[in-house]
Amino acid sequence: MPPVLSALHILHPRLSLYVKPLFLRKFPLPRRSVPINPRTLSSVASAQSSTENGDSRGRSGSLSAPPSLLEEAVQKIDVNPPKGTRDFPPEEMRLRNWLFHNFREVSRLYGFEEVDFPVLESEALFIRKAGEEIKDQLYCFEDRGNRRVALRPELTPSLARLVIQKGKSVPLPLKWFAVGQCWRYERMTRGRRREHYQWNMDIIGVPEVTAEAELISSIVTFFKRIGVTASDVGFKVSSRKVLQEVLRCYSISENLFGKVCIIIDKIEKIPMDEIKKDLKSVGMSEEAVEDLLRVLSIKSLTKLEEILGGAGEAVADLKQLFSLAEKFGYSEWIQFDASVVRGLAYYTGIVFEGFDREGKLRAICGGGRYDRLLSTFGGDDIPACGFGFGDAVIVELLKEKGILPELSLQVENIVCALDGDLQGAAATVATILRDKGQSVDLVLENKPLKWVFKRAARINAERLILVGNTEWQRV
Amino acid sequence: MPPVLSALHILHPRLSLYVKPLFLRKFPLPRRSVPINPRTLSSVASAQSSTENGDSRGRSGSLSAPPSLLEEAVQKIDVNPPKGTRDFPPEEMRLRNWLFHNFREVSRLYGFEEVDFPVLESEALFIRKAGEEIKDQLYCFEDRGNRRVALRPELTPSLARLVIQKGKSVPLPLKWFAVGQCWRYERMTRGRRREHYQWNMDIIGVPEVTAEAELISSIVTFFKRIGVTASDVGFKVSSRKVLQEVLRCYSISENLFGKVCIIIDKIEKIPMDEIKKDLKSVGMSEEAVEDLLRVLSIKSLTKLEEILGGAGEAVADLKQLFSLAEKFGYSEWIQFDASVVRGLAYYTGIVFEGFDREGKLRAICGGGRYDRLLSTFGGDDIPACGFGFGDAVIVELLKEKGILPELSLQVENIVCALDGDLQGAAATVATILRDKGQSVDLVLENKPLKWVFKRAARINAERLILVGNTEWQRV
Repeated sequence: MPPVLSALHILHPRLSLYVKPLFLRKFPLPRRSVPINPRTLSSVASAQSSTENGDSRGRSGSLSAPPSLLEEAVQKIDVNPPKGTRDFPPEEMRLRNWLFHNFREVSRLYGFEEVDFPVLESEALFIRKAGEEIKDQLYCFEDRGNRRVALRPELTPSLARLVIQKGKSVPLPLKWFAVGQCWRYERMTRGRRREHYQWNMDIIGVPEVTAEAELISSIVTFFKRIGVTASDVGFKVSSRKVLQEVLRCYSISENLFGKVCIIIDKIEKIPMDEIKKDLKSVGMSEEAVEDLLRVLSIKSLTKLEEILGGAGEAVADLKQLFSLAEKFGYSEWIQFDASVVRGLAYYTGIVFEGFDREGKLRAICGGGRYDRLLSTFGGDDIPACGFGFGDAVIVELLKEKGILPELSLQVENIVCALDGDLQGAAATVATILRDKGQSVDLVLENKPLKWVFKRAARINAERLILVGNTEWQRV
Repeated sequence: MPPVLSALHILHPRLSLYVKPLFLRKFPLPRRSVPINPRTLSSVASAQSSTENGDSRGRSGSLSAPPSLLEEAVQKIDVNPPKGTRDFPPEEMRLRNWLFHNFREVSRLYGFEEVDFPVLESEALFIRKAGEEIKDQLYCFEDRGNRRVALRPELTPSLARLVIQKGKSVPLPLKWFAVGQCWRYERMTRGRRREHYQWNMDIIGVPEVTAEAELISSIVTFFKRIGVTASDVGFKVSSRKVLQEVLRCYSISENLFGKVCIIIDKIEKIPMDEIKKDLKSVGMSEEAVEDLLRVLSIKSLTKLEEILGGAGEAVADLKQLFSLAEKFGYSEWIQFDASVVRGLAYYTGIVFEGFDREGKLRAICGGGRYDRLLSTFGGDDIPACGFGFGDAVIVELLKEKGILPELSLQVENIVCALDGDLQGAAATVATILRDKGQSVDLVLENKPLKWVFKRAARINAERLILVGNTEWQRV
């Protein structure tokens, strides 16, 4: 006799438990085998008829319940979530939980600690002057106390705020991760969502490229866990120091650096003529623009070294990163691509983005080094790098590849009283099983057995426990 | 030789792994014992001196990094989260995760499925006319497209919206739970927070009191899991049908029912004279008010039956609930208290709230039956009940009782290269361990051993792995 059931019998000698043999054949084998009582079938049959003839009140389980008295006066609300937002019914929530579980598990493997920040922040935290798309689309408003606030478009500024706040009380480096909802507001209707969840990992206090190498390694680990391979996706890697060195050749002010980056990030989105015009409008000469664009087209680190020379930090950092990638074991996942600059103004060094090799989707994730972000908030700078990984494109990719996991509800036991009088007994059985750590769907109403079997199938129950009337009275 | 280490040796025969014996004595015993290499101490010593004399760049680990060029022009931002909101640094996040994990585990034991809704909803979803505190404190605003929206103050209206949207496509009953952030806006500064997280469990489609009994059972299970006993907390239970029956005696309109409930919910918060005035202002006679208040003071179900008679639904429902509580095994946790009505307008039947027996704190949780909510949104009514359980009062209670868990960061391994040249080798070691499911904090910079030991202690590492230089070159 299996331990759980025998415990039940000891605690409640008057209680009979049944498992219908047909049920066992229909569903995955139960972890514990249950001896079949020869009386089961007959008592199930008698219970069934007693239920069908019984006082099943029939008030529940029906969507056509009697309408409320007020109904005529009420206008039906919009049953959809606000434009650009999502509900998570159980099937969607299972997918989200699966994704988040993998985010968290990978972060744990890398020794990162989870943090979070308010979804609502002061607007000032996100206002930067570099012309980023993220700022134009800020989901901002005035609160009831006339303060300018915003639903966060990204997590990094909040992280920087918290790091400044903690000051010297925390030993560096910090390895922090977060999974949080981010918002944007677009006036145009493109069917794009206004919210998404983002997984961030950040390393605060490490100036070496080992930090970026570690971050990319963690994303590779994530991809592998969910079944995505190096032939599905890759990382384009560059360094903003490449751009910086080119701009320095033409004596272009450091202050323009962020703006130039943002313009260049749009290269694949808007026509080249406009890119050139924008670059000239911030003060670059025709010659500088042409040279810059030539450098940005480079896809080989050797070629880059030929042009920039081997002395600069850009080439040294990138060479180190590619060497580390080999030791981490993800060389085949990364490639140098000078055109990658990322769309956030604050990056200062290595930048990278994950892309699908078929070229069908937007960037899957992106990140880089941001050694100067803290001082823009009035803090002392600390070397830092991190990435953001959204929950949207990865799901598109998994669908595309046909490897979206099939996740179904699974409840170990379904417990059902065969008679209304035994509802309390069923509750006792459920409580005992739950005390032992077993999940139980307790049937809370009098229902025909057919209904119970259907529900057992729907919740993928391993075991159906019917609390029977005949034996209950006989004992 | 333990499996992980031997695998490492096989894969990387040239790699030496060390565990400093002193370290093993200082910290909890590692799950796998590691043979101590007699060469360890000498190589550790040589590595230490090489690090100290080496080219440790000294750029990291310091909060006084060189200030950015722009610093003088920058005003320091407010490093605190917006008023009434919280950051979750690692220590707070561990507590939140522990709490949420228990919410989710209990929900799983009861066979509930997780759902979620947008934190931002149309304001109309929360506007009710009963004078609830929750509505007055709505965190609402106009979005950039001039739509009235609100940060959700509670989860139930969104759940109702989703249930109406799903219509007949979902088989009843639904057993859904959610853990979500809720918001409120108060103009006055009382040091109260503007956001909290709430665990909700709801049963949609069950008219029987078994549903309420199951919900209370799940909260009891939660309390037990986190170490809270029946001598710490209890549930006050009543039914709004008690009030309804009294009002019906005085032929008071059903439409006033919600309003009367909201007034009564304030009994312990505002003076009795005002309560009486408010009740009269909605049209109740002096006599009706006095009778109502007399009934509300009843704390015994027998007494209630004497006054209302045994024929009504109020007494029948409550008697059934108390009988089921016995079968579920939580009789000692619950007591009848007619004064409990809860502050939400939509409850129609059983209502309950969790309270601390010392009477120091606000309600810990609360819930009840809301069979008419869907029709107020223009849907067909479906019998339903649920509860909300916040993350604030329970933490106060755990602190009060001195049973707040001590949760610390725990990383299984810390891996450190003893020389900058071996950073890649350390990355390889880390990768192998992580591939085996072990968590690794990889030291990303050249650091003195003293620093590494301190970090190992801080992260509660079970094992310190030093990748050594001497042996590396010798092999």
